[in-house]
Amino acid sequence: MDYFSSDFKLGILGGGQLGKMLLYETRKWDIYTKVMDASPQAPCKIACNEFVLGDLMDFDAVLAFGKDVDVLTIEIENVNVDALEKLEEEGVKVYPPPKALRTIQNKAQQKLFYVDNNIPTANFSRFAYASEIKDSVENGGLEFPFVWKSAQFGYDGQGVKIVRKTDDLDGLPPGECITEKMVDFKNELAVIVAKSSSGEVKTYPVVEMEFHPEANQVEYVICPARIDEKVAQKAQQVALKVSEHIGHVGLLAVELFQTLDDTILVNEVAPRPHNSGHYSIEASYTNQFEQHIRAILGLPLGKTDSKVAGVMVNLVGAEGHQGDVVYENIQEILAMEGVTPHIYGKKQTRPFRKMGHVTIVNQNMGKAREMAQKVKEKISVISK
Amino acid sequence: MDYFSSDFKLGILGGGQLGKMLLYETRKWDIYTKVMDASPQAPCKIACNEFVLGDLMDFDAVLAFGKDVDVLTIEIENVNVDALEKLEEEGVKVYPPPKALRTIQNKAQQKLFYVDNNIPTANFSRFAYASEIKDSVENGGLEFPFVWKSAQFGYDGQGVKIVRKTDDLDGLPPGECITEKMVDFKNELAVIVAKSSSGEVKTYPVVEMEFHPEANQVEYVICPARIDEKVAQKAQQVALKVSEHIGHVGLLAVELFQTLDDTILVNEVAPRPHNSGHYSIEASYTNQFEQHIRAILGLPLGKTDSKVAGVMVNLVGAEGHQGDVVYENIQEILAMEGVTPHIYGKKQTRPFRKMGHVTIVNQNMGKAREMAQKVKEKISVISK
Repeated sequence: MDYFSSDFKLGILGGGQLGKMLLYETRKWDIYTKVMDASPQAPCKIACNEFVLGDLMDFDAVLAFGKDVDVLTIEIENVNVDALEKLEEEGVKVYPPPKALRTIQNKAQQKLFYVDNNIPTANFSRFAYASEIKDSVENGGLEFPFVWKSAQFGYDGQGVKIVRKTDDLDGLPPGECITEKMVDFKNELAVIVAKSSSGEVKTYPVVEMEFHPEANQVEYVICPARIDEKVAQKAQQVALKVSEHIGHVGLLAVELFQTLDDTILVNEVAPRPHNSGHYSIEASYTNQFEQHIRAILGLPLGKTDSKVAGVMVNLVGAEGHQGDVVYENIQEILAMEGVTPHIYGKKQTRPFRKMGHVTIVNQNMGKAREMAQKVKEKISVISK
Repeated sequence: MDYFSSDFKLGILGGGQLGKMLLYETRKWDIYTKVMDASPQAPCKIACNEFVLGDLMDFDAVLAFGKDVDVLTIEIENVNVDALEKLEEEGVKVYPPPKALRTIQNKAQQKLFYVDNNIPTANFSRFAYASEIKDSVENGGLEFPFVWKSAQFGYDGQGVKIVRKTDDLDGLPPGECITEKMVDFKNELAVIVAKSSSGEVKTYPVVEMEFHPEANQVEYVICPARIDEKVAQKAQQVALKVSEHIGHVGLLAVELFQTLDDTILVNEVAPRPHNSGHYSIEASYTNQFEQHIRAILGLPLGKTDSKVAGVMVNLVGAEGHQGDVVYENIQEILAMEGVTPHIYGKKQTRPFRKMGHVTIVNQNMGKAREMAQKVKEKISVISK
């Protein structure tokens, strides 16, 4: 099919910042797009060709949305997979495939998938109800501290909690969940794997992530990771193994732990462009959004190497601020060389909400990392 | 003013490919935009916040369009300057300033400006009517060959003709024009100067242009130009001199000739993002479109250096093809490393129409230039 000059239509479920950045690429190639999101203020509302207001978890809404598109993709995992399966049966190319999405959507299923395929991951227990956790602790089946994760619909650090004592169990949502052994790690890493519908596979360099301890959100993403080459190779091999078995098409972002003894464990995966790949817009030969489009359209994959070292800083809403957003000191960071802010266009800020990101690129990694620190110190996302 | 989170509104006159690429940047920074263009199929119609159908040369249309914007810019010079002057009087920030635009819009005025300011340019004659050229030739005031240029509204090689004999004068538009001495040159060069409303000035590296001999359109733009460092410095100095005297704000693309004896002559200028700067999207720390936005908003200018060598190939409609466009072999060029096509989204092709461009980046300039040749040979813009 000739995507560049025909009646081809690409559907995107979700109209947030990832969708918005995907739309830069569809605009660049003049690919016709149709986006669905539940919010009339969705960042994607402009720049797509058609915008549909609708609930991504609603079977009928997703089914109706997908009927007239040729290829359907997502920018968020929390979508109605039953509708995607139906659309796939009806001949729509759904990437990531519903089967892979189902495995990923439920964290318990995801963990079982790792075990079934002999992919290294932290030990875990599965609970149909959160109330069962307390029993397990009491009868010695589970030891503090551990990580609680909701099986469904975690996003941006929601649905994850570190449990250090019995009191921490109070107030957890009642539903299906897993608990994971706390991993002592040197680094959190990520590898983005691109797989095209024609079967071509490429990996991006391993990136290193620094998390904000309270918000459980990434604070810096550093590409390439400042790790031993052997560890980087191992991380890429593990990511490729996940990619191979999970049956995705498009991007797969694989988050990993590098443990104290340099074992690589899979933390979790996302079958789409990912925060850990935002640096690629400024640093890579082919950015992750263009790569996702290439992959789902079956076009040749682009070069994943970097032109320069890149560090990405998330712009999240400051604590104590809620309301109309102001990007304090953005002019100061614009005066720094190789610094590019991205503003997602959400009008309201709240603590830890992802409002944008800033990429810092430099020929020298040390310099880029140093500047990222300054960017982080200068800019803040506050309310008016 | 806080452009990133307030009621600020940016107006753009013209909704073609340059406007479309400007909109990537306003989207990146969530800047509210309003665009006017005469065509309902304008590439800018989506991705701006408001689109207004209107004739850019119509006083009332431009005046009405500009009344509610805070900053007004252009993506094409052929706009009604009287309306811009009125808007400026009323307090709208118009960049480039109408005065500079008036000088540039009329090629005779532009040439007089160079002479008045002692800026080197090819010798020329000015004619109120094209019919006067014949008289001048007959009485020995003008010698073949020379270049005829319409004083008003040249674009994409229209309004320019090489005149080698009397017959070539037949069929020229009757209006005001200039004739220029043919320059024997080694290279055609260009320098983009950015000047912010707060007075900051930066230049991009000198680029080298190869023109298609018949279409009089750029075929390759090569950054950095493969010229002597001294010549590059001279080219930058001349460009800065033009910038200083012409009173622009925003980008100024200065096209230059490097003559056989390494004299630098100004050919012509454009007060906006320019074809000779498209390479910057993939190759530069700050692309020309972001830089134009920075400049007209009075934000700090970004770094103009390149991360990698870049070569840009224009995608123009093939001869003998008119109608619904097809980008033949685009998949083959997508398979080449560091190659990024941009499709402007014009649905109909015609001979020499600018339909897109392709950027080729590489650490090695020789390799980039070699690949550009292959890109040029492979892809063609044809009709169905």
